[in-house]
Amino acid sequence: MKAAVIAVGNEVLFGDTVNTNGAFVAAELTAAKVQMVLQTVVPDQISQLVAAISQARRVADLVVLIGGLGPTVDDITRQAIADATGCPLQLDPTALADVERYFAERRRPMSQSNRQQALVPVGGQALANQRGTAPGLWLEVDSQVVVALPGPPIELAPMFRETVLPRLRQRLEGGRQVIWLRTSGIGESTLQDMLGDLLTTTNPSVLPYAKLGEVHLRILADAASQPAAEQMAAQRLAAVMALIGPYVYGQGDVSLESVLLDRLRQRQQTVAVSESATGGLISARLSDPAGASQVFLGGSIVYTASAKVHFGALDAGELRRHGPVSAWAAEELAHSVRHQLDATWGLASCGWAGPEADGEVGLAYTAVAGSAGVTWREHRLGHNRHDVRHRLAQAALWHLYQVLDEAE
Amino acid sequence: MKAAVIAVGNEVLFGDTVNTNGAFVAAELTAAKVQMVLQTVVPDQISQLVAAISQARRVADLVVLIGGLGPTVDDITRQAIADATGCPLQLDPTALADVERYFAERRRPMSQSNRQQALVPVGGQALANQRGTAPGLWLEVDSQVVVALPGPPIELAPMFRETVLPRLRQRLEGGRQVIWLRTSGIGESTLQDMLGDLLTTTNPSVLPYAKLGEVHLRILADAASQPAAEQMAAQRLAAVMALIGPYVYGQGDVSLESVLLDRLRQRQQTVAVSESATGGLISARLSDPAGASQVFLGGSIVYTASAKVHFGALDAGELRRHGPVSAWAAEELAHSVRHQLDATWGLASCGWAGPEADGEVGLAYTAVAGSAGVTWREHRLGHNRHDVRHRLAQAALWHLYQVLDEAE
Repeated sequence: MKAAVIAVGNEVLFGDTVNTNGAFVAAELTAAKVQMVLQTVVPDQISQLVAAISQARRVADLVVLIGGLGPTVDDITRQAIADATGCPLQLDPTALADVERYFAERRRPMSQSNRQQALVPVGGQALANQRGTAPGLWLEVDSQVVVALPGPPIELAPMFRETVLPRLRQRLEGGRQVIWLRTSGIGESTLQDMLGDLLTTTNPSVLPYAKLGEVHLRILADAASQPAAEQMAAQRLAAVMALIGPYVYGQGDVSLESVLLDRLRQRQQTVAVSESATGGLISARLSDPAGASQVFLGGSIVYTASAKVHFGALDAGELRRHGPVSAWAAEELAHSVRHQLDATWGLASCGWAGPEADGEVGLAYTAVAGSAGVTWREHRLGHNRHDVRHRLAQAALWHLYQVLDEAE
Repeated sequence: MKAAVIAVGNEVLFGDTVNTNGAFVAAELTAAKVQMVLQTVVPDQISQLVAAISQARRVADLVVLIGGLGPTVDDITRQAIADATGCPLQLDPTALADVERYFAERRRPMSQSNRQQALVPVGGQALANQRGTAPGLWLEVDSQVVVALPGPPIELAPMFRETVLPRLRQRLEGGRQVIWLRTSGIGESTLQDMLGDLLTTTNPSVLPYAKLGEVHLRILADAASQPAAEQMAAQRLAAVMALIGPYVYGQGDVSLESVLLDRLRQRQQTVAVSESATGGLISARLSDPAGASQVFLGGSIVYTASAKVHFGALDAGELRRHGPVSAWAAEELAHSVRHQLDATWGLASCGWAGPEADGEVGLAYTAVAGSAGVTWREHRLGHNRHDVRHRLAQAALWHLYQVLDEAE
């Protein structure tokens, strides 16, 4: 099955909004073994949208439209589908009842214009929207499928995953399995060297994606059936893990901080953080997941020498001798914050983020203190201030992750 | 002038990468008075790219291609432009010298495949790339313009702004002036009420864009000449500022933290931060701009009660009485951290971010302590953990901004 995705609206076309919806739908379709052949963005003008739908139907079996389903005159997607397919609109009583219930449940008055959201092309079906007023559309015509989804991501994503994808799967031949791995502590080129021939096969395929501070890996397997694809992917996963397992911290849409917090929670352990160059980035990440306060206690931001002495409890003379960016400073900060907050683990960072610096920009240290002592690591993280700071936060979290691994 | 933007490559088409380049170019063109009519994303396949270029030339006077200029066989943009326009490729000696110099300066060997990056359609020109190996292309054919830009944003943005935009301006009739304003401390609907009729005129137009915790405003004026457009925009700016001036913290691409740091630096003042619910977000923002350490000293992350007592120096009994989310706690934390780090200003946050909470999710406090005393504010910031945390960080920075304003 080949697919085209059309985003409707001036806001995306004029670049005021980045087309994240298009990327989401394209990635979901690709993972479901649908071949993406085209993405377009068109203005809120019916003639241009009709032309785009017609063009998409010439190259694709599936056309997914995003946006333009609201109640205003700018919302032209329903009419454009009707015009492009020759299936006139009619009022769908079930869809109308859904829209009316949405307003009734929220005790909000429903305007007359919302009625047009219940219009459906003849032969098509409305797709219920749990989170907004705009029903989606599903239309099968000339052995093709035309789907329309609402623009707000919070409405689009569940409608796509819960309603559209299951319907598409019934039409898809064969199976596809996608596994995403997240790695840390290893660069893309080293990872490629370690994976070697595994990167050159096409089915299953293994593809690295470099992100700031970490590399993600996509394993993709196609087969005649879904179970066969899952088995192929699982075998390739085992081969990948045998080569780079120690660098893989999770599968799917997980963050390093959420994995860390889960591990600490399972052990009933806690962590406190003392940050210099990262200036709050490590703490902000560790306090991001829900329930973080069971594990992350807090810490100190010791951005200046005075803060290192007063909050970090560093000896002023020793600090001058070793310098604020040193293995000694990282160790002392980790040690201090662990004791100050009575945490199982103390984690610390220091470094020269630049652009102006009294030392080598990109040079940085992390330290992890625990009951068995303290370890430090030296890092060289490039020359861009933003990247150095974010890579250092990642390096600190990874340092703690590996110490936990060893302590297991 | 009407424009179409074509992004080339499977990575964008399949949704692995969000098309931020397309949004960037579209926004820049819109600001320069070019009418965006189409955006497309096509695979790394020459026949499909040729078809997309031909289609774009039917609806637009300007076609901008993004990506596909590298040295590999997947990089098909040059050949596709040649095929679609009938202008065959030839080696451009100047472009070749540029590519060779790029490698020589970095003492890296240049492979034979990099030579093809110096191919230019007959009648076209190579655009020098200061930051990578791939020259861009500029081709005028049949009174239309075809431009090709490299895919890496760090190469694309300067080439577009420094080379392409000045050339386009020579072909554009009339003038357009765009002014972006950034506001904080006011919701979109209140802002709309205050601006009233200013939002309904079409030229100049004033358009709000709601972001997380702040609202941006775009003023856009079209006129027969650039000076006339600038004058119209300046007059509308004055009218807007007369109505909402106190909520505008900056123009253009500035952040609230960078404006705050500049103001503090001018006064030779410093700030220290004590964060509870924000967990490091305020400190991470204040340490983000280059040169932050002259102004931002550091502070404490007091995520748990124990941290509030040990790092925040809060009295344990009083903390139980008032609760960790209270005006009292915010005031005490701001006061403590100011004294602990001997800062001009102490800034503090506390709140219930949820989803599980011992109080009302979204309820939060900020406090600012200075030599003249301490002030606190109460906030209700919604029910989504991520949004509450980021809105609270914004509210804290805005609290300090306004206290500075009053202290002027």
